[in-house]
Amino acid sequence: MAENNHKKIIVFDSTLRDGAQAEGISFSVSDKLKIAAALDELGVHYIEAGNPGSNPKDLEFFTQVNKINFKNAKITGFGSTRRRGIKVEDDSSVKSLLEANTPAVAIFGKSWDFHVTNIIKTTLDENINMIRETVAYFKKNGREVIFDAEHFFDGYRSNPTYALASLDAAVEGGADILCLCDTNGGAFPFEVYKVTKLVVEKYADKKHISIGIHCHNDGGMAVANSIMAVEAGAIHVQGTFNGLGERCGNANLCTIIPNLQIKKSFSCIPAENLPDLTTTARLVSEIANVMLNERDPYVGKSAFAHKGGMHIDGVHKAANSFEHVKPELVGNNRRFLMSEVAGRSTILSKIQSIDPNLTKDSPETNEIMSKLKELEYEGYQFEGAESSFKLIIRKYLGKYKPFFQLIHFKIIGEQPCNGGYSSTAMIKLAVDGKEEITAADGDGPVHALDKALRKALEVFYPELKQVHLTDYKVRVLETTAATASKVRVLIESTDGKDSWTTVGVSTDIIEASWIALVDSIEHKLLKDMEQKMRAFM
Amino acid sequence: MAENNHKKIIVFDSTLRDGAQAEGISFSVSDKLKIAAALDELGVHYIEAGNPGSNPKDLEFFTQVNKINFKNAKITGFGSTRRRGIKVEDDSSVKSLLEANTPAVAIFGKSWDFHVTNIIKTTLDENINMIRETVAYFKKNGREVIFDAEHFFDGYRSNPTYALASLDAAVEGGADILCLCDTNGGAFPFEVYKVTKLVVEKYADKKHISIGIHCHNDGGMAVANSIMAVEAGAIHVQGTFNGLGERCGNANLCTIIPNLQIKKSFSCIPAENLPDLTTTARLVSEIANVMLNERDPYVGKSAFAHKGGMHIDGVHKAANSFEHVKPELVGNNRRFLMSEVAGRSTILSKIQSIDPNLTKDSPETNEIMSKLKELEYEGYQFEGAESSFKLIIRKYLGKYKPFFQLIHFKIIGEQPCNGGYSSTAMIKLAVDGKEEITAADGDGPVHALDKALRKALEVFYPELKQVHLTDYKVRVLETTAATASKVRVLIESTDGKDSWTTVGVSTDIIEASWIALVDSIEHKLLKDMEQKMRAFM
Repeated sequence: MAENNHKKIIVFDSTLRDGAQAEGISFSVSDKLKIAAALDELGVHYIEAGNPGSNPKDLEFFTQVNKINFKNAKITGFGSTRRRGIKVEDDSSVKSLLEANTPAVAIFGKSWDFHVTNIIKTTLDENINMIRETVAYFKKNGREVIFDAEHFFDGYRSNPTYALASLDAAVEGGADILCLCDTNGGAFPFEVYKVTKLVVEKYADKKHISIGIHCHNDGGMAVANSIMAVEAGAIHVQGTFNGLGERCGNANLCTIIPNLQIKKSFSCIPAENLPDLTTTARLVSEIANVMLNERDPYVGKSAFAHKGGMHIDGVHKAANSFEHVKPELVGNNRRFLMSEVAGRSTILSKIQSIDPNLTKDSPETNEIMSKLKELEYEGYQFEGAESSFKLIIRKYLGKYKPFFQLIHFKIIGEQPCNGGYSSTAMIKLAVDGKEEITAADGDGPVHALDKALRKALEVFYPELKQVHLTDYKVRVLETTAATASKVRVLIESTDGKDSWTTVGVSTDIIEASWIALVDSIEHKLLKDMEQKMRAFM
Repeated sequence: MAENNHKKIIVFDSTLRDGAQAEGISFSVSDKLKIAAALDELGVHYIEAGNPGSNPKDLEFFTQVNKINFKNAKITGFGSTRRRGIKVEDDSSVKSLLEANTPAVAIFGKSWDFHVTNIIKTTLDENINMIRETVAYFKKNGREVIFDAEHFFDGYRSNPTYALASLDAAVEGGADILCLCDTNGGAFPFEVYKVTKLVVEKYADKKHISIGIHCHNDGGMAVANSIMAVEAGAIHVQGTFNGLGERCGNANLCTIIPNLQIKKSFSCIPAENLPDLTTTARLVSEIANVMLNERDPYVGKSAFAHKGGMHIDGVHKAANSFEHVKPELVGNNRRFLMSEVAGRSTILSKIQSIDPNLTKDSPETNEIMSKLKELEYEGYQFEGAESSFKLIIRKYLGKYKPFFQLIHFKIIGEQPCNGGYSSTAMIKLAVDGKEEITAADGDGPVHALDKALRKALEVFYPELKQVHLTDYKVRVLETTAATASKVRVLIESTDGKDSWTTVGVSTDIIEASWIALVDSIEHKLLKDMEQKMRAFM
């Protein structure tokens, strides 16, 4: 086993490039900007953000991202070596990548002789020229160059001399990093270790060159293979958040980072940011609109969830009896399933924020806990929707008086529609016995309803004029029931000072949205009332 | 690296025991019987099926399962060593396990000194006695005994002498298999290799004893760790289907079996059964009522799904260019996804399925490609929604005639609502000049609209009675515009024979759903028409 001479690991994230090649993923430009900001905040070193030559969305992204100053990350463009038989400066993809104007570029080239002759159909010599010349061209233009040696392990198995020659070509071109790729994801841990070690030793005298690793998960071993490469001396690790990627995905950085940083004393991201790992992972999956696998190591909902009786008993005596690391190190929570003591302290603190006299043994605490479990079973999710949860506690404790009574609403959607909007909402409600009826139109039924509700309420509560919705998310919960399936709606609102999130669940998207809208408005009115009372006292 | 002297691997499945400890899993007795039958059919050697002492459900299961003759598998009961300070024959759990009357038993005992003194709170010597006596008791009663050395790797790290002494105790008791468990799932590949190799060598002269491995996935390396143990000489591998298990789950047998059998020439299950692996994995997830992770190696829906243009192009030239094994070996399918990153060749094959005369250089091909990119930029996603994409090609090529004209629809949602449904839809449409007007109610506006549309069309196209929706997905595209943001709706439909997916995008969820609904119906009618024409010709 190689000694861990290099304690610092360079983290290269490809969520926005290789991750976008996962089935079901389609990032908008705004999605990509949000993810890039979160990854930079966490402290990754490179963000590979797309192929500027491949489509208009990526082009627009690079224009926008270049206006942002990142704290930690270098934005990296991705592209291939020049095409066969043309000059590098005449290659349109090379041009686009250069125009994207990123500080670093990842250039992939073929290391597997079979791919050279049978897939891109050129000669082994021309491929070597393509690698050397493309790398040299980007170096000449002032870019940092990561050479992605595509199919390196398959290539080494087929023709080790040629695979190594492809690396030599990149070195001659001036590459800064040689990244060994297991593109098809089928390599085994010992093999990755052995081959990486050989490459590390081959370039050991070239101090300016670092060796990297890029693994795919087709054999379910992408994380372990990446770790083995690091044990062999690689210091640059490529992967994606939540393991998103083509086919079975890429090496999951959310697993690799804590594996190396907590358990092997490497430094991957700033130590103070490690507790943000879980939030970042969940944010990425939220933006990508894919479910985070509950059993994902470190960041999954179940990663520290104990179910077996003996396990729960053991963890109560000593957490490390059934936990390999402390969940708080990565910002996750320990949970006890099928146990009345689940999460009691977290929930207790919410309850006490409303009634400080209640303790963990109060009957109300138990009852609220059961209510919470029941609602979660129905599809509610209060993680990130604390405003709705606090309203439930208030209602339960009798510390709640509705701010208005709904008398009736009616929404009409029609096609073809006259004028710009296809939906109209009428609403009639009462505040302290005074009725108000009004209407609004909008893009779709929920938009119309939201506008009508606030228009009616602003008559009584002018402070609602400051409120607007900043986020609206819909998740279908049981897909088997098709259009009659349950949906969960999350609404994020702001009044310019604070922002809050509320949740509603129903088989009817309008009802689910209504529940979340009403919670959002009541949260605002309660918040203002409490502020006034504090100022008065 | 150890030579692969032992070509046969003993597969020990714990889906019904450790798998049942996964969050969200609750198997009924009939679920367990169905899974056991499927695993036996596939050819696993042991089915660990529960702890007869722990709950009445497990007890009933063992009574029923003993009536079945399995072809390949030995049903195995699971239990711990006797409690401290009592005689083994007086221990109630030991009694229950014996009464379950299984041919094999898995007995777990402590190998980590810390667990002995701090968790089960006994002396190191008494724990050794507990192991030896419990194993001996089951051997005396004619059982095959697998000794699960719980926390073996943590134990070895803490006190190697004691960890090995726990194995010696099991050997003295007459154990047939010593299974080294990474109970907390935090071990690293090299460590597992090194420690397993040492144990394999220690008992090399005892030919009747086999060494096993049992890994958990808390470091995301359970599969690789199991493989490393096999490379070190272990021949008995424990895991679960789809990696179900406590916290982050157990080593996934659906990955380990093909890794070893296809790529390392071991024999795990009968060769002729390997193509049943995908079906079995999906059956288990179906019975467990959990989604199979789409990116799961070998058996996941995306495992052989190609999206990047160069990947698709490569696979068309030679499948092994971007596939580490052939999908049919494990009964899975290759898929090409439609997307902006997909290359010309995929799109061309769709175009040619409608007009075989077009080539990749036809101007129509270029125009359709640009149209695709434009629509994707607007938020469309054709990956998995190929039916909508084919309809677009038809419309573009003038090979499309609408099956009906919408005259008008109106949807009304109201609260409070009378009766069960909150939404009503009225629709008026025409087919060949004949008008039909009808209405339906439903859970939410889209459900009502879907019902009304099909009710009206069934008058003209009775074959639509076979169609129903199986999936309905909503994705909000730009969350910043809140309730006025764009949504993408994906609808999956089936007529009992085929299933197809269509897509719609709009700022109005009703309009987006309408687009996808109409595409779904037109796809069905076109499909039936083409079939009739083929039969006629």
